[in-house]
Amino acid sequence: MQLRYSIFGESHGPAIGVVVENLPAGTAVDMGFISRDLDRRRAKKGGLSTTRLERDAPEILSGVFEGKTTGTPLCAIIRNGDTRSADYERTKDLARPSHADFTGFVRYGGHNDYRGGGHFSGRLTAALTFAGAVAKLCLRERGVAVGAHILQIGPERDVPFDPVNLQPALFEEIAAKSFSVIDDAAGERMQAVIQAARMDVTSVGGLIQCGITGLPAGVGAPDRDSLEGVIAKNIFAVPAVKGIEFGLGFQFASAYGHEVNDEMTLKDGSVVTKTNRNGGILGGISNGMPIIFQTVIKPTASISRPQQTVNLSSMAEETLEIHGRHDPCILSRASVVIEAAAALSVLEALL
Amino acid sequence: MQLRYSIFGESHGPAIGVVVENLPAGTAVDMGFISRDLDRRRAKKGGLSTTRLERDAPEILSGVFEGKTTGTPLCAIIRNGDTRSADYERTKDLARPSHADFTGFVRYGGHNDYRGGGHFSGRLTAALTFAGAVAKLCLRERGVAVGAHILQIGPERDVPFDPVNLQPALFEEIAAKSFSVIDDAAGERMQAVIQAARMDVTSVGGLIQCGITGLPAGVGAPDRDSLEGVIAKNIFAVPAVKGIEFGLGFQFASAYGHEVNDEMTLKDGSVVTKTNRNGGILGGISNGMPIIFQTVIKPTASISRPQQTVNLSSMAEETLEIHGRHDPCILSRASVVIEAAAALSVLEALL
Amino acid sequence: MQLRYSIFGESHGPAIGVVVENLPAGTAVDMGFISRDLDRRRAKKGGLSTTRLERDAPEILSGVFEGKTTGTPLCAIIRNGDTRSADYERTKDLARPSHADFTGFVRYGGHNDYRGGGHFSGRLTAALTFAGAVAKLCLRERGVAVGAHILQIGPERDVPFDPVNLQPALFEEIAAKSFSVIDDAAGERMQAVIQAARMDVTSVGGLIQCGITGLPAGVGAPDRDSLEGVIAKNIFAVPAVKGIEFGLGFQFASAYGHEVNDEMTLKDGSVVTKTNRNGGILGGISNGMPIIFQTVIKPTASISRPQQTVNLSSMAEETLEIHGRHDPCILSRASVVIEAAAALSVLEALL
Amino acid sequence: MQLRYSIFGESHGPAIGVVVENLPAGTAVDMGFISRDLDRRRAKKGGLSTTRLERDAPEILSGVFEGKTTGTPLCAIIRNGDTRSADYERTKDLARPSHADFTGFVRYGGHNDYRGGGHFSGRLTAALTFAGAVAKLCLRERGVAVGAHILQIGPERDVPFDPVNLQPALFEEIAAKSFSVIDDAAGERMQAVIQAARMDVTSVGGLIQCGITGLPAGVGAPDRDSLEGVIAKNIFAVPAVKGIEFGLGFQFASAYGHEVNDEMTLKDGSVVTKTNRNGGILGGISNGMPIIFQTVIKPTASISRPQQTVNLSSMAEETLEIHGRHDPCILSRASVVIEAAAALSVLEALL
Repeated sequence: MQLRYSIFGESHGPAIGVVVENLPAGTAVDMGFISRDLDRRRAKKGGLSTTRLERDAPEILSGVFEGKTTGTPLCAIIRNGDTRSADYERTKDLARPSHADFTGFVRYGGHNDYRGGGHFSGRLTAALTFAGAVAKLCLRERGVAVGAHILQIGPERDVPFDPVNLQPALFEEIAAKSFSVIDDAAGERMQAVIQAARMDVTSVGGLIQCGITGLPAGVGAPDRDSLEGVIAKNIFAVPAVKGIEFGLGFQFASAYGHEVNDEMTLKDGSVVTKTNRNGGILGGISNGMPIIFQTVIKPTASISRPQQTVNLSSMAEETLEIHGRHDPCILSRASVVIEAAAALSVLEALL
Repeated sequence: MQLRYSIFGESHGPAIGVVVENLPAGTAVDMGFISRDLDRRRAKKGGLSTTRLERDAPEILSGVFEGKTTGTPLCAIIRNGDTRSADYERTKDLARPSHADFTGFVRYGGHNDYRGGGHFSGRLTAALTFAGAVAKLCLRERGVAVGAHILQIGPERDVPFDPVNLQPALFEEIAAKSFSVIDDAAGERMQAVIQAARMDVTSVGGLIQCGITGLPAGVGAPDRDSLEGVIAKNIFAVPAVKGIEFGLGFQFASAYGHEVNDEMTLKDGSVVTKTNRNGGILGGISNGMPIIFQTVIKPTASISRPQQTVNLSSMAEETLEIHGRHDPCILSRASVVIEAAAALSVLEALL
Repeated sequence: MQLRYSIFGESHGPAIGVVVENLPAGTAVDMGFISRDLDRRRAKKGGLSTTRLERDAPEILSGVFEGKTTGTPLCAIIRNGDTRSADYERTKDLARPSHADFTGFVRYGGHNDYRGGGHFSGRLTAALTFAGAVAKLCLRERGVAVGAHILQIGPERDVPFDPVNLQPALFEEIAAKSFSVIDDAAGERMQAVIQAARMDVTSVGGLIQCGITGLPAGVGAPDRDSLEGVIAKNIFAVPAVKGIEFGLGFQFASAYGHEVNDEMTLKDGSVVTKTNRNGGILGGISNGMPIIFQTVIKPTASISRPQQTVNLSSMAEETLEIHGRHDPCILSRASVVIEAAAALSVLEALL
Repeated sequence: MQLRYSIFGESHGPAIGVVVENLPAGTAVDMGFISRDLDRRRAKKGGLSTTRLERDAPEILSGVFEGKTTGTPLCAIIRNGDTRSADYERTKDLARPSHADFTGFVRYGGHNDYRGGGHFSGRLTAALTFAGAVAKLCLRERGVAVGAHILQIGPERDVPFDPVNLQPALFEEIAAKSFSVIDDAAGERMQAVIQAARMDVTSVGGLIQCGITGLPAGVGAPDRDSLEGVIAKNIFAVPAVKGIEFGLGFQFASAYGHEVNDEMTLKDGSVVTKTNRNGGILGGISNGMPIIFQTVIKPTASISRPQQTVNLSSMAEETLEIHGRHDPCILSRASVVIEAAAALSVLEALL
């Protein structure tokens, strides 16, 4: 039975949530672990993110009994609290540029819930984070760990993961920080970029790098079930993601084969590669090396500068000034979301 | 009913082929169009690609009646001809670095057909190209066109597609060329890069840029059925692909919101965007602008230099020198394959 | 996008519920209609069913905005109220014969929630009924109606549907009754059979017949996507169902072709069949006649007589006497559940 | 990865075939075994079946290497030989009653291949039989056996399987016979019924009973992935099937709980049931007892008596007399096809 999950909810509806089907039975559902992940995703005070503050206290409705997964569908919901729908009522017919307002309107014939972006809201990633945390707990029992950090914001970069000797302890270290980077000095510079963007009434994009350790060789398949494809499908479900690359990724475009092939050797009797430019996947199948991928997240589309748009009701051009509460940069909250999508992907491929 | 396709075959087996299910009925199967696409993918003489030359004459076994699709499963096969399995017999236990030899061996318990890469061979993309050509014919009836060009090889770049005013006529122009670029001078420089790589006994990577015109707004979905996700899943089924980005893609990492948001306006009564940095997709759904994505293809893993590897039979380290016939760069053959994967994706999302 | 639904919950957990994905947008969610269906499924006083009485008040968490479906995932939950887990604690290791206790225990390694049958409980059909009611509302907008009645309980039979001239008005008439039959006298006899079974400390099985009107010709497919297959897959998701047949069904076994072929004719310019022994489906595809199928529901497995079983903890044979509250016959509650599964099937095939 | 198969081809096209994806790697592909199954399905001389005689020699195009499954997609084709399309040309616009001619015409907008029923032809079951034989070989390695016999034709019945002590040796015995029954005397009477039907210019229906032994407890799932649902979906893909029941099936309708519950006991330390009225499945999950189901196959729709129909081209009522070569009863050929569909189902659920 294939692992499946369905995320539901709207930003200003009664609740958001997720149903996960075909989880392995008997995994301890460590609520402390899950809460920490939800906390990593939550908006924080201090100007780095939106002032909408949610408690994000999940309620598990099914699929957990005596503290462990039952194997039957797990549903968890998170009630929506601090909503200000009035912020959206004023401009409900004005499609926000680079948002899903227009596409959602067309796709659903105008019946989509526009308040706060409705189902397209980044708020839905709290449900994804919950599901991902459960997936991580299942993976942990199988010796697999997933971690991510902010690799870049604007012009500032963190040190990348070591693709050959990546250790899960590093993931723990990053997860314990309030800003998910390896190099705290780089993190300081990134935060300065974010504050500058806020001051400049704009937003800024960045990169998340994700690593997966402990995945044995032989997981995945060629063709449409490739491990890259499964991961990509889940990562593109995260709002604002515009690209994904494995290993060297786009650097391969200007590379020569003799420079980037991963030569093979033996280590403790196992076949390993000396380098890991392929990010742990060959032919759609894991090769036992750490899985490494980078994903790009665009600048938050909601900015408070005047922008030209179209009134979908009157079909006239108008100028929109977005008010409301928005993150000038979602990278600081996105790394745990990317981990979640990656964990669900790998668990799906592994089972 | 969802469009589905299954590619089958091994490089040195009797035949490769594809079954496509749930195609629309009644589409004229223009064999001239299909043959042109297969021809674009075929190896050519002149040193740019492998000396394995295949006729690639497809035989349609089902799903076409009186020249049109029946709507029931379409199967086409292409017999394998010019195989030299002996080339592979000598080194069958030596996993080729950066190939799927080791991962396929582990995944399939050593039962995979190793000859010429077996099912992992780039030869399988001929079957994908066939299916993609049929998908393009179905899309053409719906006003949708798909085209790709080589955007980069090594350090040399073609001019990119105009993301706002992309026209299908340009796709036709490119498809008629023997080297799939917009700017022939750039193409000449790229071919020089390939020849230099061959002389240097190495290989070189590059970028394919793909565009899709005529897709109406409202195709796709949020979450795991996002249009980006569907395209990515199919693109990662193509061997050697290591990344995909939509619109500005990885450039978003260092961009600011006010610089890259796509403001909206009206054109002939329709909602359009003035720019198209998002590559035609917002919230997982098409917005009516051209779909634009780039994908990176790594340098051919098969190079004739000595490389360290492991003998999977004796589990000893050995040095491998690959002989056999290999492309120093597959970009010239890959653009039509990327078009095929894109066409199948869009048709799946559109139906 | 394919219609999908996921039912979650356990009999004695916090709540049960359902997520329905890819519903059409803009359908009015008539809560009166939905409540009536939930009411039809609820246990009633008077000895025909269990004394566990639930209010079954659904809470919609997502997917409905301003009274209409948004097209994004619809989640509804129903809180569990009147549970007596202590009834089950006493006998938790004793697998109830003909129940899923043993199979669930093996499938989920003993981690399933055993209280009240857990996820295998008939209570979950309230969530299915909710989803089915929404599907019926979507179908109603497309001119399709779904209705079912109790065709048989023990030796007593209702009059069957007219397979050629079936009218949706009859569905309304049946739905308004407290006991879902066409012929009330037959219904009285059936209720006497149920009361006799209760007095005899046993249970009794029966047949549900379901009809679907207004479905146009051409819905479905051959092979694994056959309309019969889609319906059967959903019907077998209902606990206690042990068989399904379309049209004449098992009577075809002793029939001759010239007696049972459905000759074709024209009616108001449309192709129809004079008879409808095939139940409206040929080659896996609807032919425009009413869809007619029968499904068999076994006697409630929970009976209060001593039965031999195995203690799954001590692995010893034991005698079990089930106490707790059980229906002597679930047919009176099952017809609306079968309607729900049928409605979801047809909507999936139709979209 | 889920086992998937796709059947392709038309009755009078170049070939029929099947692609099976995600087969286990390393299973020996015993061509003698496969040929025996194909031979069991083939028409035989002597008046019991059609005079269209096909060699049914399969050609494996992929997925088998050195005599074993590779794990990558297996494609096999069977060329069509003895076709007489002219038989169909004369009456191509006349929809044959109780056939898929009309529904296929509507579904595919008139583009379906009408010759010999096209994709809807019973001939396609040769491809299904091939795939099923491969699935049986995979199951055999896991200790699971699948067998079927003709339980009924017209009024004549074979002895049923013993649902508790069913042995795979019986399957072998039946498979070796030219007419698939347990009791040869019953088989003689059935054959007399078929000959009488032929003489009477009609056709006759019947029942196939299928058994599966060796399946461990715990295979399947509740809800839409129920083992009954998976089997039913595949069985309804077989043309002319109109119903399926598990264990006592429709007899449950008039049964009382205390008569039909399966009490549990221990045998050699394992939990078993004393009886097996549930056909080996509870809650959608196998309980370790033999799986037993019956399926009904309607009388061959093609009979040479005059029948009223509609000309789909002129939209006028006409009388059709079918000529061509048809089985008066397909039961004798159907048992191995039902085995195939069952084997594929169980392998899918087991992997």
